[in-house]
Amino acid sequence: MRAIVIREPGGPEVLEWREVPDPRPERGEVLIDVVASALNRADVMQRQGFYDPPPGESPYPGLECSGVVAEVGADVAQFSVGDRVCALLGGGGYAEQVAVPWQQVMPAPDGISLIEAAGLPEVACTVWSNVFMTARLRRAETLLVHGGASGIGTMAIQLAKAFGSRVVATAGSQEKLDTLRALGADEVVNYREEDFAELVQADVILDIIGAKYLSRNIQALRTNGRLVIIGLQGGATAEIDLLTMIRKRLTLHATTLRSRPADDKGVIVRGVVDNVWPLISAGAVRPVIYAEMPMAEAAGAHEMLDSGEHVGKILLVR
Amino acid sequence: MRAIVIREPGGPEVLEWREVPDPRPERGEVLIDVVASALNRADVMQRQGFYDPPPGESPYPGLECSGVVAEVGADVAQFSVGDRVCALLGGGGYAEQVAVPWQQVMPAPDGISLIEAAGLPEVACTVWSNVFMTARLRRAETLLVHGGASGIGTMAIQLAKAFGSRVVATAGSQEKLDTLRALGADEVVNYREEDFAELVQADVILDIIGAKYLSRNIQALRTNGRLVIIGLQGGATAEIDLLTMIRKRLTLHATTLRSRPADDKGVIVRGVVDNVWPLISAGAVRPVIYAEMPMAEAAGAHEMLDSGEHVGKILLVR
Repeated sequence: MRAIVIREPGGPEVLEWREVPDPRPERGEVLIDVVASALNRADVMQRQGFYDPPPGESPYPGLECSGVVAEVGADVAQFSVGDRVCALLGGGGYAEQVAVPWQQVMPAPDGISLIEAAGLPEVACTVWSNVFMTARLRRAETLLVHGGASGIGTMAIQLAKAFGSRVVATAGSQEKLDTLRALGADEVVNYREEDFAELVQADVILDIIGAKYLSRNIQALRTNGRLVIIGLQGGATAEIDLLTMIRKRLTLHATTLRSRPADDKGVIVRGVVDNVWPLISAGAVRPVIYAEMPMAEAAGAHEMLDSGEHVGKILLVR
Repeated sequence: MRAIVIREPGGPEVLEWREVPDPRPERGEVLIDVVASALNRADVMQRQGFYDPPPGESPYPGLECSGVVAEVGADVAQFSVGDRVCALLGGGGYAEQVAVPWQQVMPAPDGISLIEAAGLPEVACTVWSNVFMTARLRRAETLLVHGGASGIGTMAIQLAKAFGSRVVATAGSQEKLDTLRALGADEVVNYREEDFAELVQADVILDIIGAKYLSRNIQALRTNGRLVIIGLQGGATAEIDLLTMIRKRLTLHATTLRSRPADDKGVIVRGVVDNVWPLISAGAVRPVIYAEMPMAEAAGAHEMLDSGEHVGKILLVR
């Protein structure tokens, strides 16, 4: 088969579409004929050499895909050849085929195309696991979403609204803020012009910035607030004020989806299928897609992601 | 009635046993004739002027007591005059009487004296809420307890062992470490001589040190580990390494019992009555009491606490 190979750590130009060995489904795995994959910021870090795949995972980038089941390994009763699916991957989505533990595979949701479904697994699993399972956002609580225009941000806004919460989202341009309002955000903050910590009090914060926002995120949390850090775009090392945290009885979760064991991912995936897919099928939550590019042109897609102008997901289509 | 009054912020000598107005039970409150109270480190901070009681709480120190119900306010069906009880207080335990929301009152457990019961509410509620409700310590997981010789430490060791976990505890002298082993600790670490972070890998850490231990606590946590900070004896401001936290998917809880609303305390109290009292009655978990002093001599009891030589609780008896 062909896959996108990272020739050496570097810019988008190191991504090459070339012939590689075919993957085989091992015991408990499903082999998927990939229809589409999607970009995640982790792919950029992997391309740059800062984020090697976990041991045993495919060396090719791509943390999610949609497609059709081509073959099932031993002990897989949950899926059959021909099933239309999408999957959360440990890597290898930028390829014609990928093998993945069955626990990470879900039926493609009704109501959207199989191509659109390629951009859902990472954002749906990330938001469901972090905002709902880990931080336990409740109805009538306020969620603050940093990077509201990202794929994760656009899903977080829609899901939190669908479950009855109030949502504040940040972005860096008026155009993006308008889009976030259209997706349902109750309030928006232009982080280039305003200090969110002066404007917002939230019960849960979903953060991709890390160190640079840590003290302001703590300031912006209400009593019993939960901060979930899933990215470190603003650095990894910061000073933390534990007295304020104790006074407000705060919780800081720092986590990532990719490194979790397949069974843990399976619990998340089943939560997504049960709780998010019905909202997708009903049209209450929709995938926000910025562009579809041919998979062989992954380099151009990465340039687009690096530019930071997108709202929502960039897909790679076979 | 008489109570211990903090004459002005300062050392133990500012504690005076003197006549004060009698408390009255308001709606939903129980008035307790105090038999005994117990010392907590927060009392020392309050004495020094660093920790004012939450709004509406008694100005006298004392976060727990045992005694007999003297009167019940309106809308209290759960307790009757004459009941032998102990209670988690927002303050006012160093006194002949104290009024407290009924949610914070529990029947004194069988199998120990009413005086001994005075030292249980804070340690039992603190350990139950933080280690079991918040950090969800599971069987076969490892708990690291800092300050193992404190009242909280001695309860944490016993409860975690009773629920099937492995326990490592730190203390500062061989004599204390021997006592912690006798209470059930599987491993002990002398923090004056050894670096716990080099020796221990834990799933849950119960910490009273704060800043000084933060980076080492993060180092000592396993994947999916939970750090619960309930004290800041080693400072409040520290550098935090979010990348390590993300890589190990760690959670940091910072919390305190005293400032929580009565209903929240009620949930904890009911958990303690259901889960901890049976172990006390069966003799599987016992209150560890270092000394009993007359309440009028609270100053001497505070000197004893300040010296740091004690293991377990110091009680004040009427």
